[in-house]
Amino acid sequence: MHRKRLTEAIKEKGSYLCVGLDSDITKIPAHLLSQSDPVFAFNKAIIDATLEHCVSYKINTAFYESRGIKGWESLEKTVNYIPSTHFKIADAKRGDIGNTSSQYAKAFFEVLSFDAVTVAPYMGADSVQPFLEYSNKWTIVLGLTSNKGAADFELQEAGGEKLYEKVLRTVSAWGDPGNLMFVVGATQAEEFVNIRRLLPEHFFLVPGVGFQGGSLKEISEKAMNKDCGILVNVSRAIIFAGEGENFAEEAKAIAAQYHEEMREYLK
Amino acid sequence: MHRKRLTEAIKEKGSYLCVGLDSDITKIPAHLLSQSDPVFAFNKAIIDATLEHCVSYKINTAFYESRGIKGWESLEKTVNYIPSTHFKIADAKRGDIGNTSSQYAKAFFEVLSFDAVTVAPYMGADSVQPFLEYSNKWTIVLGLTSNKGAADFELQEAGGEKLYEKVLRTVSAWGDPGNLMFVVGATQAEEFVNIRRLLPEHFFLVPGVGFQGGSLKEISEKAMNKDCGILVNVSRAIIFAGEGENFAEEAKAIAAQYHEEMREYLK
Repeated sequence: MHRKRLTEAIKEKGSYLCVGLDSDITKIPAHLLSQSDPVFAFNKAIIDATLEHCVSYKINTAFYESRGIKGWESLEKTVNYIPSTHFKIADAKRGDIGNTSSQYAKAFFEVLSFDAVTVAPYMGADSVQPFLEYSNKWTIVLGLTSNKGAADFELQEAGGEKLYEKVLRTVSAWGDPGNLMFVVGATQAEEFVNIRRLLPEHFFLVPGVGFQGGSLKEISEKAMNKDCGILVNVSRAIIFAGEGENFAEEAKAIAAQYHEEMREYLK
Repeated sequence: MHRKRLTEAIKEKGSYLCVGLDSDITKIPAHLLSQSDPVFAFNKAIIDATLEHCVSYKINTAFYESRGIKGWESLEKTVNYIPSTHFKIADAKRGDIGNTSSQYAKAFFEVLSFDAVTVAPYMGADSVQPFLEYSNKWTIVLGLTSNKGAADFELQEAGGEKLYEKVLRTVSAWGDPGNLMFVVGATQAEEFVNIRRLLPEHFFLVPGVGFQGGSLKEISEKAMNKDCGILVNVSRAIIFAGEGENFAEEAKAIAAQYHEEMREYLK
């Protein structure tokens, strides 16, 4: 998906919501477990219910891999079910030496029809570049993550700046704002002004709103640019809003609340 | 697998060779392509041929994911085929926030019967700890990798030391030499003396010998400790040694050469 189409979708819809399909089979409503593919049945209902409120879906590969081949089947069906109007992110946090990263890029961009994949920066340029070689696809590199462990390395000093700043600065030269985004956690609001100053043009994928406690208002105020410039992901707070037969309507209601709030911030 | 069993296997066999099953379907012998699962047929023949010369197998998940569900099936069959005498490594380079890393740990340690999984350190403690919580399993964290991109961040200055040194020092406190190893590339021979001084007890998984050009002799001299302390991985130079009907014998011949050389260094 081209950047122009993504920004138009955000403006037309008045939403920069990404719904995270962290579809843990132990947390989905019990009545779905009798289905042949309970996780796909769950995802399908969540997608149908939230489609009008979001512009993107993010599939967290861990929750599928933990079910082996059956999980990979649910993942494939899910990505095929999401319409091409919506930006499809594989939250996979991959990254390896060049010939291996090429295989991961093939897995997510060719075998599966994702628009974007999240990539870890630790191993440097040749671990990221194979993803960037695909035209009309996006590489979303970890910048400053939402978890407590961000303090262990990302926020540590590294040659006169913080490590995450070095990562943003270095990696941004390997691609451009049309094929490269960064993960910046919503729980890192105090760093967001600095991050937007460092990278005025790029989109950020922002997890950490909802269950992890980040404030949508605060990060919207601090991180938006003229093209919106952020995709805010909410996973558990939306998909597990309800536990019973009407789980999809409850998920829809929460997604609608985020949508309404985002429409205000976009004005 | 307990450390004691691994070190005994190394001493009894006179080998610290890990065979890397980077089984790219576009590179396996053409006569296998008519089989129902060509990659598993290839792996099975390679495993049968090399079993006596190595103590470990490393499965690079990228080469399986790039074939979708069929690839995941080949991966599952392969890990089940490797006998429990051999140390089974998932070279997956995973790592995410805690609840997600738990799912990856489940994928590789419960659903699949790997002894070890490689993990990226960038996201810090809570991204690594879920792997360390499994008893009798190993977490192999990226330290200093074998690729050119290691220069971009790993070898950069970070608070008075190199970033990879900070990673080795910090992460080593999260586990112990009985459940934690580090990836150190064989192409980084000049850093090996320093690395062994920093971590005298730990095992290192050492890729980069063979196709990538690292010297087995040099890293063996610089990195061994009293328990051997290194697992040297060779992938392409062994598994793609031959291209025809006798590919397995050719792979065996190369594995035997490494074995013979290692037996000398272990004396």
